[in-house]
Amino acid sequence: MKKVCVIGLGYVGLPTAILAAQAGLSVVGVDSNKDRVDKIKQCLPVIEEPEILEKLHTVIDTPHFKVTTDYEAADYFVVAVPTPFKDNKRADLSYISSAAMSIAHVIQKGNTVILESTVPVGATRSFAFVLEHETGLKSGKDFYVAHCPERVLPGNIFHELKVNDRIIGGIDPISVQKAAEFYKYFVSGDLYLTDASTAEMAKLIENSYSDVKSAFAHQVAEMAKKEGLNPYEVIELANKHPHVSILNPTCGVDDVSVAADSNFLITSFKEETTLLQAARNINNARPQYIFSEVKAEIEAWKKVHNKKCKVIALGISYKPDVNDINESPAQYIALELSKETEIDFLVCDPHITSEQWNHQLKSKMVLLKEGIETADIIVCLVAHSQFKLIDKKYFAKKRVLDYCGLFHSNRKESREQEQFFWPASESNDFYRSSMSNMMRADIGTSTKEQL
Amino acid sequence: MKKVCVIGLGYVGLPTAILAAQAGLSVVGVDSNKDRVDKIKQCLPVIEEPEILEKLHTVIDTPHFKVTTDYEAADYFVVAVPTPFKDNKRADLSYISSAAMSIAHVIQKGNTVILESTVPVGATRSFAFVLEHETGLKSGKDFYVAHCPERVLPGNIFHELKVNDRIIGGIDPISVQKAAEFYKYFVSGDLYLTDASTAEMAKLIENSYSDVKSAFAHQVAEMAKKEGLNPYEVIELANKHPHVSILNPTCGVDDVSVAADSNFLITSFKEETTLLQAARNINNARPQYIFSEVKAEIEAWKKVHNKKCKVIALGISYKPDVNDINESPAQYIALELSKETEIDFLVCDPHITSEQWNHQLKSKMVLLKEGIETADIIVCLVAHSQFKLIDKKYFAKKRVLDYCGLFHSNRKESREQEQFFWPASESNDFYRSSMSNMMRADIGTSTKEQL
Repeated sequence: MKKVCVIGLGYVGLPTAILAAQAGLSVVGVDSNKDRVDKIKQCLPVIEEPEILEKLHTVIDTPHFKVTTDYEAADYFVVAVPTPFKDNKRADLSYISSAAMSIAHVIQKGNTVILESTVPVGATRSFAFVLEHETGLKSGKDFYVAHCPERVLPGNIFHELKVNDRIIGGIDPISVQKAAEFYKYFVSGDLYLTDASTAEMAKLIENSYSDVKSAFAHQVAEMAKKEGLNPYEVIELANKHPHVSILNPTCGVDDVSVAADSNFLITSFKEETTLLQAARNINNARPQYIFSEVKAEIEAWKKVHNKKCKVIALGISYKPDVNDINESPAQYIALELSKETEIDFLVCDPHITSEQWNHQLKSKMVLLKEGIETADIIVCLVAHSQFKLIDKKYFAKKRVLDYCGLFHSNRKESREQEQFFWPASESNDFYRSSMSNMMRADIGTSTKEQL
Repeated sequence: MKKVCVIGLGYVGLPTAILAAQAGLSVVGVDSNKDRVDKIKQCLPVIEEPEILEKLHTVIDTPHFKVTTDYEAADYFVVAVPTPFKDNKRADLSYISSAAMSIAHVIQKGNTVILESTVPVGATRSFAFVLEHETGLKSGKDFYVAHCPERVLPGNIFHELKVNDRIIGGIDPISVQKAAEFYKYFVSGDLYLTDASTAEMAKLIENSYSDVKSAFAHQVAEMAKKEGLNPYEVIELANKHPHVSILNPTCGVDDVSVAADSNFLITSFKEETTLLQAARNINNARPQYIFSEVKAEIEAWKKVHNKKCKVIALGISYKPDVNDINESPAQYIALELSKETEIDFLVCDPHITSEQWNHQLKSKMVLLKEGIETADIIVCLVAHSQFKLIDKKYFAKKRVLDYCGLFHSNRKESREQEQFFWPASESNDFYRSSMSNMMRADIGTSTKEQL
């Protein structure tokens, strides 16, 4: 029975360890955080992921699954530790270095070490050098090193770990074959074999491409705002072209690793990332841009109504339908609004507890219906499914600022909801009201009459 | 029988006129270029498009189809004149203005005017103002104006004009309905009705999104070059992720309207187009970047071989499998190389005649096999289908610089061709040679043995 030591029991490492155990490998899960290890032993949640506890239950008491803070000898070492971006300046590879040092104490001839953490181009090779230096062994001969970037999105990790294709990049041809043997235990997707640098860069451009696409969406939103147009409608229509699929604008970037991965590239390739740098600047500035827009709307409202304005933010999590506010751009905007003394500010997010929010500031968290009824200005920040179900009559006479497409329904989906639009300038209210009842016209005879 | 006057008989106007006639409308095609009108009358080609002459034959001698230089009264006016970008500074709307002035002479109450030319946001409304001013009639009451951006790619225009969805943006609700009636004659795709500004912006962002995607691909190529990696391989692997579809790098942007449309937006929205501006700079600089790289390769070759270097450029058209060199980035690169006195420079492009090329400069055009046999350095600029069929043995011992992905075969398609790679730095030759025989590993038992 082959043995794998999975290092780092987070969103990637823990599900990987469970899948490996289910596939018949002997598994040791290692994490430097003792509290985390203890929780896993007791089948308590350490990551937010559907089915994680049920799956953990299937392996936790079996003889070939254990979790610990200590590294053990194994045939395979899978490193899935964080590689955050430090002080917005350089990749923090300390977790990786620390894993390399610890592996060096237990590695034996014939073992294979796989780096799953996202790393700058060249890091897998450096990782191998560290192991060589610490052990006196020779990579490619005594032990094998490969990079196999994780490419899962939280929420569907078990499925994605199994069925997604994987890229495996070896520091040499033997390493890549050895690493592939490990993934064959539980991956049903294709394994694409290449060199380590190609694998590293492929993963980084995957995420930075998202960054660029988000930035494009945000600039469309800015242009549309200037013209008093609904950016979600403009984008929906552009996307009717067979080869176009522009993202919808949001409050920022809804995956924290996107910024980090772009920064890895920007740091390594200053001259070759001017596009990415422009994208980073746009996405970084997006929450502040939205906050300024909301502030201007509040000022405008106060001029007309001459009293204190009640503002509610809908959604503060980092993306729809999750209960995590870590690095959430929506939360940033809500925090800035909560500092405004000239307004009454409320927050509504059915996925976030008062404790998650209130430990920081005192703006009240309210239930949806109550909040909307009270508010003068409604700022939509995160398009939770639950929000989409609200009866639109509650929004009558409210100023609705939609930064997540909550009130835009694609034309084929729901015609009734089209009465709600992005705040348009006065000059465009004509279109907003008169066009709203003009729906998509099919060419069939039945709809010719509708026109 | 309703009558349509199609103004501008180019890539969009002429096929539209033919389709309208086939659909049972009485058609007058108008073009200010008398030579073009005469050619169409004689069924001679004025645009490069498959089936254009056969389709023209079906209508040219029918009583309800005519082409002329003079505007005529009609129920519908469809304006499909060029809107080029002038001196890299402002949109040249003179063709549009001129069309408006001419339509003003013949327009009658109840007529509908549709602008198909791509225009800056707000131009359809200005067009309507001109008509009002010239005629004393009132738009939305006496006549109707809408924007319906064309969204076809040359090569498949007749099909796309019929089946693609269309966006129709009216200057008011009646105008959009009137315009939709025209398209129902021959469009089987969906018609999406909106206001004119939304339609204008939707079209512009469609094309500028391509610009941004191309720029991303080119910067991946630059980063890959720095690391000695094959950008086509990096991108192919990134694209194995379900949500990623990065373009392949080429010599520039393979659609001349992309740059113009981006510039429309950049001119109108200076602050909101920083991403697009970065993209434009990258794509504008791409041919010069490639030329510099090729020059450096020539210098390196000469240092080793100490004799005059023979260089061949494969492909000079603006994109694969077309015979047009107008605004071709590949042609720019070839022209720059042809000025180099220190090399023997050859050009091969089966789609371009010697006349198209030689009237500019004297570098010899050669046949493919002959050219490749003679050359020391082969610069691949356009991935014509014909080039892909070349027996790779002819490239042995040649320096191949691939700027169009000619030598990259996606892994599932052809394993034999994987021996050819992007020029890698010496330090990476190990990967290039050893990895080239490592193929995609399926997880099935049959391929486990292959590894």
